[in-house]
Amino acid sequence: IAGYKIGAGSPSWLSAHGLATATAPPVEALLGAGADLVGKSKMDEMAWSLLGENVHYGTPVNPRSPGRVPGGSSSGSVVAVAGGMTDFSIGSDTGGSVRVPASNCGVYGIRTSFGAISLKNSVPLAPSFDTAGWFARDPETMRRVGSVLLCDSTPVRQGSPAALAIDAFAVADSAVAEVLQHTILRLKKVFSGLTEVTLSAQGLDNWASAWRIIQAREVWEAHGQWVQEYNPSFGPGIRERFQWASTVDIDQEKEARLLQVDACNDLNKVLEKGSVILVPAVPTVAPQIDEDSSRLEEYRTRTMMLTCAAGLCGLPEITIPAGEVDGCPVGLGVIGPPGSDLALLDLAQRV
Amino acid sequence: IAGYKIGAGSPSWLSAHGLATATAPPVEALLGAGADLVGKSKMDEMAWSLLGENVHYGTPVNPRSPGRVPGGSSSGSVVAVAGGMTDFSIGSDTGGSVRVPASNCGVYGIRTSFGAISLKNSVPLAPSFDTAGWFARDPETMRRVGSVLLCDSTPVRQGSPAALAIDAFAVADSAVAEVLQHTILRLKKVFSGLTEVTLSAQGLDNWASAWRIIQAREVWEAHGQWVQEYNPSFGPGIRERFQWASTVDIDQEKEARLLQVDACNDLNKVLEKGSVILVPAVPTVAPQIDEDSSRLEEYRTRTMMLTCAAGLCGLPEITIPAGEVDGCPVGLGVIGPPGSDLALLDLAQRV
Repeated sequence: IAGYKIGAGSPSWLSAHGLATATAPPVEALLGAGADLVGKSKMDEMAWSLLGENVHYGTPVNPRSPGRVPGGSSSGSVVAVAGGMTDFSIGSDTGGSVRVPASNCGVYGIRTSFGAISLKNSVPLAPSFDTAGWFARDPETMRRVGSVLLCDSTPVRQGSPAALAIDAFAVADSAVAEVLQHTILRLKKVFSGLTEVTLSAQGLDNWASAWRIIQAREVWEAHGQWVQEYNPSFGPGIRERFQWASTVDIDQEKEARLLQVDACNDLNKVLEKGSVILVPAVPTVAPQIDEDSSRLEEYRTRTMMLTCAAGLCGLPEITIPAGEVDGCPVGLGVIGPPGSDLALLDLAQRV
Repeated sequence: IAGYKIGAGSPSWLSAHGLATATAPPVEALLGAGADLVGKSKMDEMAWSLLGENVHYGTPVNPRSPGRVPGGSSSGSVVAVAGGMTDFSIGSDTGGSVRVPASNCGVYGIRTSFGAISLKNSVPLAPSFDTAGWFARDPETMRRVGSVLLCDSTPVRQGSPAALAIDAFAVADSAVAEVLQHTILRLKKVFSGLTEVTLSAQGLDNWASAWRIIQAREVWEAHGQWVQEYNPSFGPGIRERFQWASTVDIDQEKEARLLQVDACNDLNKVLEKGSVILVPAVPTVAPQIDEDSSRLEEYRTRTMMLTCAAGLCGLPEITIPAGEVDGCPVGLGVIGPPGSDLALLDLAQRV
């Protein structure tokens, strides 16, 4: 936002950069359409986490599960909506940073098709995966924001069955999978039934691993020079991720890129035949605040097995609030073909 | 442009689509900054040619070499500028569609960094290569357009020597390489000298081949369904390219993607050390109108050996008019690191 500083969740970034001289295009578009800007929000450091815990600025309170993390990296954004402070809020989604917090806080959230919304004047994480998204408590508001920011027109094929990703559901807790059934049945009625598909012939763990490797290479390409020159003080987790990113080599990237080509080819085939792909937005309810780090690492790994499909292939995915497990919200992920963002938002209204 | 039909150089596309309901963001930005819209221009069919000949609509006249093609695909745009009809014009550049016509018509042209300018509301060719660009007769106008459309801030390192790509110069006619020396010497003075580099360890022919394969896969992904359903009547060259694109398989794409990873890794190393990379914008002067097709195919292959570097790796490249060979204009290509678009435009003003 022109005239304000951007910190990207990092005090080092904040102090290393001056006032922004221009506003990001989606913010400009929303203001131009009559939205009020009520504030900027907290986020995970450099957007590189799915938890919403920021060691420098604290953890925004998850209004639906106060003892649990809100999810991130768009942590403050989701909480502003879930807590009723704003009608909607925007965020970025590279590997789940809108979809996961939406699920954790019981609101709608969309990660848009890669390239559908300009990211000019925003801080990159991994440029070939970065996308813009937003949160709202109701699907009508979601759609209104979409009508300002999007103009895509790829339909979802309601004459075809929706594709239930059985390998993705196998990653989720059975309690989560069970709660999602209610929303899945509603979708089944909108489409001509349901069909079961296996997303990944190579295993979702291998997709997630390829995704992380490409991401690390791109993060280091985008920020490595700054990290080396400024030696920013990153919090735990983020620090190790940057350190690891500096070591990922080109051969690892090449292997990952090959898998990416296969993954996208397979996903496109599913989306050509079917209509949308249904996945759990998260494998389990939001972790408790101050969960121990080995359990968080396992959570992170499982979550990426669910979020990486849309990430690897630039696909839009909407999180639809779908019930509660142990009193904590969980959402259903609905993935569409590239450019079907508005169609997914329309679908959310029908469901 | 909202309220107008878009044809993308194809009568079939024109008749298959209704009035545009929204305007492309760069057009909106330019109109908002006070530009006047004086017209829409001809282009190569579906943007898939470097010549500027359109079998359906004719060939815009190259004002600097009336018997030769203007170059394309942004053929009408470049002619509008070269002929003094407009101060500047916009175009798209996937594999040279701004850089090549700028060279052929003796004007400035820039292909911007991948993702720097939104392509919303425009017709795609190969989405991971497509970029926006523009033409002008003088570098000041080039820079003014850039100040409206861009806000990037990557510098070019004028304390380092400029990198002369000797394998790219080896592709060009010796008469072209010789004419470019004058502009190269001016750049040498702006930078701390010149250094010679070999861009491609694998050979520029293999880079160009990888580029074409990835492009074909993406074109077919973007348009294959439409082509199969509508059976559009494409002109010669375009028809064969679409036919070929339908046959390129995933194994070819994977091999090409691996080469792309290596190519971008190598190019980034050159740009980190050096400042900018200098290449001939074209291998030879513009082909004569109605040149025979086997010579045009050779021209196309050689030209892509020069244009593919920026294309494969999302780099910005500006064409600087640099003299004449046999009375026909030729330009020098200056490639910068990602996000150095404004720095390249500043550089053009200094040179």
